[in-house]
Amino acid sequence: MIAEAIETALKGVTHIDGIKPDMPLAGKRVLVTAGPTREPLDPVRYLSNHSSGKQGFAIAKSMAELGADVTLVAGPVNLPSPLGVTRIDVETADEMLQATEAALPSDVFISVAAVADWRPAARADKKVKKAKLQGGLPPLELVENPDILKTLCQKTSDRPTLIIGFAAETNDVIEHAKAKRLRKGCDWIVANDVSGDVMGGDHNRMIIVTETGETEWPRLTKQESADKLAQSIADYFKA
Amino acid sequence: MIAEAIETALKGVTHIDGIKPDMPLAGKRVLVTAGPTREPLDPVRYLSNHSSGKQGFAIAKSMAELGADVTLVAGPVNLPSPLGVTRIDVETADEMLQATEAALPSDVFISVAAVADWRPAARADKKVKKAKLQGGLPPLELVENPDILKTLCQKTSDRPTLIIGFAAETNDVIEHAKAKRLRKGCDWIVANDVSGDVMGGDHNRMIIVTETGETEWPRLTKQESADKLAQSIADYFKA
Repeated sequence: MIAEAIETALKGVTHIDGIKPDMPLAGKRVLVTAGPTREPLDPVRYLSNHSSGKQGFAIAKSMAELGADVTLVAGPVNLPSPLGVTRIDVETADEMLQATEAALPSDVFISVAAVADWRPAARADKKVKKAKLQGGLPPLELVENPDILKTLCQKTSDRPTLIIGFAAETNDVIEHAKAKRLRKGCDWIVANDVSGDVMGGDHNRMIIVTETGETEWPRLTKQESADKLAQSIADYFKA
Repeated sequence: MIAEAIETALKGVTHIDGIKPDMPLAGKRVLVTAGPTREPLDPVRYLSNHSSGKQGFAIAKSMAELGADVTLVAGPVNLPSPLGVTRIDVETADEMLQATEAALPSDVFISVAAVADWRPAARADKKVKKAKLQGGLPPLELVENPDILKTLCQKTSDRPTLIIGFAAETNDVIEHAKAKRLRKGCDWIVANDVSGDVMGGDHNRMIIVTETGETEWPRLTKQESADKLAQSIADYFKA
Protein backbone atom coordinates (compact mmCIF):
# COMPACT_ATOMS: atom_id res chain seq x y z
CA MET A 1 0.00 0.00 0.00
CA ILE A 2 2.81 2.35 0.97
CA ALA A 3 4.85 1.20 -2.01
CA GLU A 4 1.95 1.98 -4.34
CA ALA A 5 1.40 5.39 -2.79
CA ILE A 6 5.08 6.19 -3.31
CA GLU A 7 5.00 5.02 -6.90
CA THR A 8 1.91 7.12 -7.61
CA ALA A 9 3.35 10.14 -5.85
CA LEU A 10 6.67 9.96 -7.65
CA LYS A 11 5.26 9.20 -11.07
CA GLY A 12 6.44 11.79 -13.51
CA VAL A 13 7.82 14.28 -10.99
CA THR A 14 11.35 14.27 -12.41
CA HIS A 15 10.84 16.98 -14.97
CA ILE A 16 7.84 19.11 -14.19
CA ASP A 17 7.52 22.58 -12.71
CA GLY A 18 10.11 21.96 -10.00
CA ILE A 19 13.16 22.59 -12.12
CA LYS A 20 13.94 26.24 -12.69
CA PRO A 21 17.28 26.44 -14.51
CA ASP A 22 18.10 29.88 -13.11
CA MET A 23 17.75 28.77 -9.50
CA PRO A 24 20.78 27.71 -7.42
CA LEU A 25 19.39 24.24 -6.68
CA ALA A 26 17.79 23.63 -10.09
CA GLY A 27 18.24 20.03 -11.15
CA LYS A 28 19.08 18.86 -7.63
CA ARG A 29 16.98 16.14 -6.10
CA VAL A 30 16.38 16.69 -2.41
CA LEU A 31 14.82 14.27 0.05
CA VAL A 32 13.50 15.56 3.38
CA THR A 33 11.91 13.62 6.23
CA ALA A 34 9.78 15.48 8.75
CA GLY A 35 7.48 15.00 11.72
CA PRO A 36 7.33 12.18 14.24
CA THR A 37 6.73 8.51 13.63
CA ARG A 38 4.08 6.55 15.49
CA GLU A 39 4.78 3.01 16.58
CA PRO A 40 1.57 1.11 17.36
CA LEU A 41 1.08 -1.22 20.32
CA ASP A 42 -2.43 -2.06 19.09
CA PRO A 43 -5.05 -0.32 16.93
CA VAL A 44 -5.48 2.58 19.39
CA ARG A 45 -2.20 2.98 21.27
CA TYR A 46 1.20 4.09 20.08
CA LEU A 47 4.62 5.29 21.11
CA SER A 48 5.71 8.59 19.57
CA ASN A 49 7.90 11.67 19.83
CA HIS A 50 7.10 15.32 20.17
CA SER A 51 7.50 16.81 16.70
CA SER A 52 5.26 19.29 14.94
CA GLY A 53 6.96 18.75 11.58
CA LYS A 54 7.24 22.55 11.17
CA GLN A 55 11.02 22.63 10.73
CA GLY A 56 11.09 19.85 8.14
CA PHE A 57 8.21 21.36 6.17
CA ALA A 58 9.91 24.78 6.27
CA ILE A 59 13.13 23.24 4.91
CA ALA A 60 11.25 21.43 2.13
CA LYS A 61 9.66 24.77 1.19
CA SER A 62 13.00 26.64 1.22
CA MET A 63 14.69 23.99 -0.90
CA ALA A 64 11.84 24.01 -3.44
CA GLU A 65 12.04 27.81 -3.62
CA LEU A 66 15.71 27.52 -4.61
CA GLY A 67 14.64 25.29 -7.49
CA ALA A 68 15.25 21.82 -6.03
CA ASP A 69 13.07 18.84 -6.88
CA VAL A 70 11.91 18.04 -3.33
CA THR A 71 10.37 14.85 -1.98
CA LEU A 72 9.04 15.23 1.56
CA VAL A 73 8.42 12.03 3.55
CA ALA A 74 6.16 13.10 6.41
CA GLY A 75 5.06 11.40 9.59
CA PRO A 76 1.63 12.23 11.10
CA VAL A 77 1.46 16.04 11.31
CA ASN A 78 -1.20 18.71 10.85
CA LEU A 79 0.50 20.77 8.15
CA PRO A 80 -0.31 21.68 4.56
CA SER A 81 2.12 20.55 1.87
CA PRO A 82 4.58 23.24 0.74
CA LEU A 83 3.99 24.34 -2.84
CA GLY A 84 5.72 22.27 -5.50
CA VAL A 85 6.86 19.58 -3.09
CA THR A 86 6.07 15.88 -3.58
CA ARG A 87 4.76 14.63 -0.24
CA ILE A 88 4.53 11.04 0.95
CA ASP A 89 2.74 10.42 4.25
CA VAL A 90 3.87 7.59 6.49
CA GLU A 91 3.25 6.51 10.07
CA THR A 92 5.98 4.21 11.36
CA ALA A 93 9.79 4.29 11.14
CA ASP A 94 9.67 1.18 8.95
CA GLU A 95 7.36 2.93 6.51
CA MET A 96 9.52 6.05 6.60
CA LEU A 97 12.64 4.05 5.74
CA GLN A 98 10.81 2.30 2.92
CA ALA A 99 9.51 5.59 1.46
CA THR A 100 12.91 7.24 1.85
CA GLU A 101 14.82 4.45 0.10
CA ALA A 102 12.22 4.35 -2.66
CA ALA A 103 12.82 8.07 -3.31
CA LEU A 104 16.54 7.56 -4.03
CA PRO A 105 18.67 8.54 -5.88
CA SER A 106 18.85 12.00 -4.38
CA ASP A 107 21.60 14.62 -4.26
CA VAL A 108 20.72 15.76 -0.75
CA PHE A 109 19.10 13.96 2.16
CA ILE A 110 17.92 16.06 5.11
CA SER A 111 16.74 13.90 7.98
CA VAL A 112 14.60 16.22 10.09
CA ALA A 113 12.04 13.65 11.24
CA ALA A 114 11.96 12.68 14.90
CA VAL A 115 12.02 8.96 14.17
CA ALA A 116 11.08 6.82 17.16
CA ASP A 117 14.20 4.92 18.22
CA TRP A 118 12.14 1.98 19.44
CA ARG A 119 8.85 0.30 18.71
CA PRO A 120 6.79 -2.22 20.65
CA ALA A 121 8.11 -5.71 19.88
CA ALA A 122 4.55 -6.96 19.34
CA ARG A 123 1.60 -5.22 17.73
CA ALA A 124 -1.82 -6.51 18.78
CA ASP A 125 -4.51 -6.71 16.07
CA LYS A 126 -7.23 -5.92 18.60
CA LYS A 127 -7.30 -3.30 21.33
CA VAL A 128 -5.61 -4.71 24.44
CA LYS A 129 -8.25 -4.73 27.19
CA LYS A 130 -7.10 -3.27 30.46
CA ALA A 131 -9.68 -5.36 32.31
CA LYS A 132 -7.95 -8.55 31.21
CA LEU A 133 -4.61 -7.45 32.57
CA GLN A 134 -5.60 -6.81 36.14
CA GLY A 135 -3.25 -8.26 38.68
CA GLY A 136 -0.13 -7.43 36.74
CA LEU A 137 0.81 -5.54 33.63
CA PRO A 138 3.70 -7.07 31.72
CA PRO A 139 6.49 -4.60 30.84
CA LEU A 140 6.39 -3.41 27.26
CA GLU A 141 9.08 -5.14 25.20
CA LEU A 142 10.68 -2.69 22.79
CA VAL A 143 12.84 -3.36 19.77
CA GLU A 144 15.11 -0.94 18.00
CA ASN A 145 13.74 0.77 14.91
CA PRO A 146 15.76 0.99 11.71
CA ASP A 147 18.16 3.94 11.79
CA ILE A 148 17.12 5.79 8.64
CA LEU A 149 19.90 8.38 8.77
CA LYS A 150 22.64 5.82 9.35
CA THR A 151 21.19 3.47 6.72
CA LEU A 152 21.38 6.18 4.06
CA CYS A 153 24.84 7.32 5.20
CA GLN A 154 26.20 3.79 4.87
CA LYS A 155 24.85 3.12 1.40
CA THR A 156 27.61 2.07 -0.99
CA SER A 157 25.55 2.95 -4.04
CA ASP A 158 23.03 5.79 -4.23
CA ARG A 159 24.42 7.55 -1.14
CA PRO A 160 23.27 11.17 -1.42
CA THR A 161 26.19 13.57 -1.90
CA LEU A 162 25.21 15.67 1.09
CA ILE A 163 23.51 14.09 4.09
CA ILE A 164 22.31 16.33 6.90
CA GLY A 165 21.09 14.93 10.19
CA PHE A 166 19.25 16.75 12.94
CA ALA A 167 19.99 16.41 16.62
CA ALA A 168 17.30 17.45 19.09
CA GLU A 169 19.09 17.66 22.39
CA THR A 170 18.10 18.74 25.85
CA ASN A 171 21.65 19.01 27.21
CA ASP A 172 25.30 19.15 26.06
CA VAL A 173 23.97 20.08 22.63
CA ILE A 174 27.18 20.57 20.62
CA GLU A 175 28.99 17.65 22.21
CA HIS A 176 26.08 15.30 21.43
CA ALA A 177 25.77 16.69 17.91
CA LYS A 178 29.46 16.14 17.13
CA ALA A 179 29.27 12.59 18.43
CA LYS A 180 26.13 11.96 16.41
CA ARG A 181 27.77 13.20 13.19
CA LEU A 182 30.58 10.70 13.56
CA ARG A 183 28.36 7.85 14.76
CA LYS A 184 25.91 8.20 11.88
CA GLY A 185 28.48 9.02 9.23
CA CYS A 186 26.61 12.06 7.94
CA ASP A 187 28.12 15.23 6.51
CA TRP A 188 26.43 17.90 8.58
CA ILE A 189 24.45 17.84 11.78
CA VAL A 190 22.00 20.57 12.60
CA ALA A 191 21.79 20.73 16.37
CA ASN A 192 18.77 22.12 18.15
CA ASP A 193 18.46 22.79 21.83
CA VAL A 194 14.94 21.53 22.56
CA SER A 195 15.10 22.10 26.31
CA GLY A 196 13.07 25.30 25.90
CA ASP A 197 10.00 25.96 23.77
CA VAL A 198 11.41 24.86 20.42
CA MET A 199 9.18 21.80 20.04
CA GLY A 200 5.98 22.89 18.36
CA GLY A 201 7.08 26.54 18.54
CA ASP A 202 7.91 28.79 15.62
CA HIS A 203 11.48 29.75 16.51
CA ASN A 204 14.76 27.96 17.02
CA ARG A 205 18.51 28.40 17.16
CA MET A 206 20.41 26.14 14.81
CA ILE A 207 23.99 25.07 15.28
CA ILE A 208 25.54 23.61 12.12
CA VAL A 209 28.20 21.00 12.85
CA THR A 210 30.41 19.98 9.93
CA GLU A 211 33.74 18.21 9.55
CA THR A 212 35.55 21.51 10.03
CA GLY A 213 33.71 22.92 13.03
CA GLU A 214 30.46 24.39 14.17
CA THR A 215 28.55 27.55 13.35
CA GLU A 216 25.87 28.95 15.64
CA TRP A 217 23.03 30.84 14.05
CA PRO A 218 20.95 33.39 15.93
CA ARG A 219 17.41 32.73 17.12
CA LEU A 220 15.25 32.87 14.02
CA THR A 221 11.83 31.69 12.93
CA LYS A 222 11.90 28.11 11.70
CA GLN A 223 11.28 29.40 8.16
CA GLU A 224 14.19 31.86 8.40
CA SER A 225 16.45 29.07 9.70
CA ALA A 226 15.24 26.87 6.84
CA ASP A 227 16.02 29.58 4.27
CA LYS A 228 19.51 29.96 5.75
CA LEU A 229 20.09 26.21 5.64
CA ALA A 230 18.86 26.01 2.04
CA GLN A 231 21.25 28.82 1.10
CA SER A 232 24.14 27.01 2.83
CA ILE A 233 23.32 23.91 0.81
CA ALA A 234 23.24 25.94 -2.40
CA ASP A 235 26.63 27.42 -1.48
CA TYR A 236 27.99 23.92 -0.81
CA PHE A 237 27.09 22.78 -4.31
CA LYS A 238 28.41 25.99 -5.89
CA ALA A 239 31.77 25.69 -4.16
CA MET B 1 0.50 25.33 37.51
CA ILE B 2 -2.43 23.25 36.27
CA ALA B 3 -4.39 24.11 39.39
CA GLU B 4 -3.82 27.81 38.78
CA ALA B 5 -4.82 27.53 35.14
CA ILE B 6 -8.04 25.82 36.16
CA GLU B 7 -8.79 28.44 38.78
CA THR B 8 -8.22 31.23 36.27
CA ALA B 9 -10.25 29.49 33.59
CA LEU B 10 -13.19 28.83 35.90
CA LYS B 11 -13.17 32.22 37.59
CA GLY B 12 -16.51 33.83 37.15
CA VAL B 13 -17.91 31.48 34.54
CA THR B 14 -20.94 30.48 36.58
CA HIS B 15 -23.18 33.31 35.50
CA ILE B 16 -22.05 34.81 32.25
CA ASP B 17 -23.35 34.36 28.72
CA GLY B 18 -23.60 30.58 29.02
CA ILE B 19 -26.93 30.48 30.77
CA LYS B 20 -29.89 31.00 28.50
CA PRO B 21 -33.06 30.41 30.55
CA ASP B 22 -35.10 29.39 27.51
CA MET B 23 -32.71 26.61 26.52
CA PRO B 24 -33.28 22.99 27.58
CA LEU B 25 -29.92 22.68 29.36
CA ALA B 26 -29.86 26.20 30.83
CA GLY B 27 -28.41 26.17 34.33
CA LYS B 28 -26.85 22.73 33.91
CA ARG B 29 -23.13 22.37 34.45
CA VAL B 30 -21.56 19.95 31.99
CA LEU B 31 -18.02 18.60 32.08
CA VAL B 32 -16.53 17.02 28.95
CA THR B 33 -13.11 15.45 28.47
CA ALA B 34 -11.75 15.10 24.93
CA GLY B 35 -8.68 14.12 22.96
CA PRO B 36 -5.85 11.78 23.88
CA THR B 37 -3.46 12.00 26.79
CA ARG B 38 0.29 11.86 26.36
CA GLU B 39 2.40 9.98 28.87
CA PRO B 40 6.06 11.03 28.67
CA LEU B 41 9.02 8.63 28.88
CA ASP B 42 11.43 11.57 28.68
CA PRO B 43 11.30 15.14 27.31
CA VAL B 44 10.86 13.96 23.70
CA ARG B 45 9.12 10.56 23.82
CA TYR B 46 5.63 9.62 24.90
CA LEU B 47 2.97 6.95 24.86
CA SER B 48 -0.40 8.03 23.47
CA ASN B 49 -3.67 6.99 21.83
CA HIS B 50 -5.19 7.81 18.50
CA SER B 51 -7.76 10.52 19.17
CA SER B 52 -8.44 13.67 17.18
CA GLY B 53 -10.66 15.15 19.90
CA LYS B 54 -13.30 15.93 17.24
CA GLN B 55 -16.12 13.98 18.91
CA GLY B 56 -15.57 15.49 22.35
CA PHE B 57 -15.29 19.01 20.96
CA ALA B 58 -18.48 18.47 18.93
CA ILE B 59 -20.31 17.32 22.07
CA ALA B 60 -19.07 20.32 24.07
CA LYS B 61 -20.37 22.57 21.27
CA SER B 62 -23.77 20.83 21.14
CA MET B 63 -24.21 21.01 24.91
CA ALA B 64 -23.30 24.72 24.96
CA GLU B 65 -25.79 25.36 22.16
CA LEU B 66 -28.54 23.86 24.34
CA GLY B 67 -27.64 26.36 27.04
CA ALA B 68 -25.37 24.30 29.30
CA ASP B 69 -22.41 25.79 31.14
CA VAL B 70 -19.69 23.62 29.59
CA THR B 71 -16.14 22.96 30.82
CA LEU B 72 -14.02 21.08 28.29
CA VAL B 73 -10.86 19.39 29.58
CA ALA B 74 -8.80 18.72 26.46
CA GLY B 75 -5.71 16.63 25.81
CA PRO B 76 -3.25 17.69 23.06
CA VAL B 77 -5.35 18.25 19.92
CA ASN B 78 -5.36 20.66 17.00
CA LEU B 79 -8.85 22.06 17.38
CA PRO B 80 -10.30 25.51 18.06
CA SER B 81 -12.39 25.93 21.21
CA PRO B 82 -16.15 25.75 20.65
CA LEU B 83 -17.87 29.10 21.27
CA GLY B 84 -18.91 29.76 24.85
CA VAL B 85 -17.06 26.74 26.25
CA THR B 86 -14.48 26.99 29.05
CA ARG B 87 -11.47 24.99 27.89
CA ILE B 88 -8.66 23.61 30.04
CA ASP B 89 -5.72 22.03 28.21
CA VAL B 90 -3.86 19.14 29.80
CA GLU B 91 -1.32 16.57 28.65
CA THR B 92 -1.28 13.52 30.93
CA ALA B 93 -4.01 11.39 32.52
CA ASP B 94 -2.96 12.64 35.94
CA GLU B 95 -3.42 16.24 34.81
CA MET B 96 -6.75 15.38 33.21
CA LEU B 97 -8.02 13.81 36.44
CA GLN B 98 -6.87 16.83 38.43
CA ALA B 99 -8.56 19.29 36.05
CA THR B 100 -11.73 17.19 35.93
CA GLU B 101 -12.07 16.93 39.71
CA ALA B 102 -11.35 20.64 40.07
CA ALA B 103 -14.27 21.39 37.74
CA LEU B 104 -16.81 19.61 39.98
CA PRO B 105 -19.61 19.91 40.95
CA SER B 106 -21.22 19.21 37.61
CA ASP B 107 -24.63 17.86 36.61
CA VAL B 108 -23.29 15.88 33.68
CA PHE B 109 -19.89 14.31 33.03
CA ILE B 110 -19.17 13.08 29.51
CA SER B 111 -15.90 11.21 29.33
CA VAL B 112 -14.97 11.26 25.66
CA ALA B 113 -11.20 11.49 26.07
CA ALA B 114 -9.05 8.54 25.05
CA VAL B 115 -7.14 8.46 28.31
CA ALA B 116 -3.98 6.34 28.18
CA ASP B 117 -4.54 3.31 30.41
CA TRP B 118 -0.85 3.15 31.30
CA ARG B 119 2.11 5.42 31.62
CA PRO B 120 5.84 4.77 31.83
CA ALA B 121 6.75 4.00 35.44
CA ALA B 122 9.70 6.37 35.24
CA ARG B 123 10.03 9.69 33.45
CA ALA B 124 13.57 10.73 32.56
CA ASP B 125 14.45 14.41 32.89
CA LYS B 126 16.87 14.22 29.99
CA LYS B 127 16.43 12.56 26.62
CA VAL B 128 17.37 8.88 26.91
CA LYS B 129 20.32 8.34 24.54
CA LYS B 130 19.98 5.33 22.30
CA ALA B 131 23.76 5.10 22.00
CA LYS B 132 24.07 4.42 25.72
CA LEU B 133 21.67 1.50 25.59
CA GLN B 134 23.42 -0.60 22.99
CA GLY B 135 23.69 -4.24 23.87
CA GLY B 136 20.26 -4.45 25.39
CA LEU B 137 17.20 -2.28 25.78
CA PRO B 138 15.37 -2.79 29.05
CA PRO B 139 11.63 -3.38 28.69
CA LEU B 140 9.52 -0.34 29.43
CA GLU B 141 7.89 -0.64 32.85
CA LEU B 142 4.34 0.66 32.74
CA VAL B 143 2.04 1.59 35.58
CA GLU B 144 -1.70 1.98 35.45
CA ASN B 145 -3.05 5.49 35.05
CA PRO B 146 -5.89 6.79 37.22
CA ASP B 147 -9.28 5.74 35.85
CA ILE B 148 -10.98 9.14 35.50
CA LEU B 149 -14.38 7.78 34.53
CA LYS B 150 -14.47 5.24 37.37
CA THR B 151 -13.14 7.76 39.86
CA LEU B 152 -15.99 10.16 39.11
CA CYS B 153 -18.59 7.36 39.08
CA GLN B 154 -17.51 6.21 42.53
CA LYS B 155 -17.60 9.63 44.16
CA THR B 156 -19.83 9.63 47.23
CA SER B 157 -20.21 13.40 47.21
CA ASP B 158 -20.25 15.54 44.08
CA ARG B 159 -21.00 12.59 41.78
CA PRO B 160 -22.53 14.10 38.61
CA THR B 161 -26.18 13.09 38.14
CA LEU B 162 -25.55 11.71 34.67
CA ILE B 163 -22.21 10.16 33.78
CA ILE B 164 -21.61 9.07 30.21
CA GLY B 165 -18.59 7.02 29.22
CA PHE B 166 -17.30 6.31 25.73
CA ALA B 167 -16.10 2.94 24.54
CA ALA B 168 -13.91 2.83 21.46
CA GLU B 169 -13.90 -0.79 20.44
CA THR B 170 -12.46 -2.70 17.53
CA ASN B 171 -14.52 -5.86 18.09
CA ASP B 172 -17.58 -7.17 20.00
CA VAL B 173 -18.61 -3.54 20.40
CA ILE B 174 -21.93 -3.84 22.27
CA GLU B 175 -20.74 -6.66 24.51
CA HIS B 176 -17.65 -4.68 25.53
CA ALA B 177 -19.72 -1.52 26.04
CA LYS B 178 -22.24 -3.25 28.32
CA ALA B 179 -19.43 -4.74 30.39
CA LYS B 180 -17.72 -1.35 30.58
CA ARG B 181 -20.90 0.35 31.81
CA LEU B 182 -21.16 -2.06 34.73
CA ARG B 183 -17.43 -2.11 35.47
CA LYS B 184 -17.12 1.67 35.59
CA GLY B 185 -20.46 2.30 37.28
CA CYS B 186 -21.55 4.94 34.77
CA ASP B 187 -25.07 5.65 33.59
CA TRP B 188 -24.68 5.51 29.83
CA ILE B 189 -21.99 4.22 27.55
CA VAL B 190 -21.62 5.54 24.03
CA ALA B 191 -20.05 2.75 22.02
CA ASN B 192 -18.10 3.44 18.85
CA ASP B 193 -16.80 0.87 16.45
CA VAL B 194 -13.34 2.23 15.65
CA SER B 195 -12.25 -0.68 13.48
CA GLY B 196 -12.98 1.41 10.37
CA ASP B 197 -12.12 5.04 9.63
CA VAL B 198 -13.79 6.62 12.68
CA MET B 199 -10.56 7.75 14.34
CA GLY B 200 -9.70 11.17 13.00
CA GLY B 201 -12.59 10.97 10.52
CA ASP B 202 -15.72 13.10 10.50
CA HIS B 203 -18.38 10.40 10.75
CA ASN B 204 -19.34 7.72 13.22
CA ARG B 205 -22.12 5.40 14.31
CA MET B 206 -23.00 5.70 17.98
CA ILE B 207 -24.62 2.99 20.04
CA ILE B 208 -26.09 4.26 23.32
CA VAL B 209 -26.04 1.64 26.07
CA THR B 210 -28.13 2.41 29.16
CA GLU B 211 -29.48 0.37 32.05
CA THR B 212 -32.54 -0.54 29.99
CA GLY B 213 -30.93 -1.52 26.71
CA GLU B 214 -29.10 -0.18 23.70
CA THR B 215 -30.05 2.13 20.85
CA GLU B 216 -28.12 2.20 17.61
CA TRP B 217 -27.96 5.48 15.74
CA PRO B 218 -27.30 5.70 12.01
CA ARG B 219 -24.00 6.82 10.52
CA LEU B 220 -23.87 10.57 11.04
CA THR B 221 -21.27 13.29 11.10
CA LYS B 222 -19.65 13.62 14.52
CA GLN B 223 -21.43 16.95 14.95
CA GLU B 224 -24.82 15.39 14.11
CA SER B 225 -24.14 12.55 16.56
CA ALA B 226 -23.15 15.15 19.16
CA ASP B 227 -26.38 17.12 18.60
CA LYS B 228 -28.40 13.92 18.98
CA LEU B 229 -26.57 13.03 22.19
CA ALA B 230 -27.08 16.53 23.60
CA GLN B 231 -30.79 16.27 22.81
CA SER B 232 -30.98 12.88 24.55
CA ILE B 233 -29.36 14.43 27.61
CA ALA B 234 -31.83 17.32 27.55
CA ASP B 235 -34.69 14.77 27.31
CA TYR B 236 -33.23 12.86 30.27
CA PHE B 237 -33.35 15.95 32.47
CA LYS B 238 -36.83 16.90 31.23
CA ALA B 239 -38.27 13.45 31.99
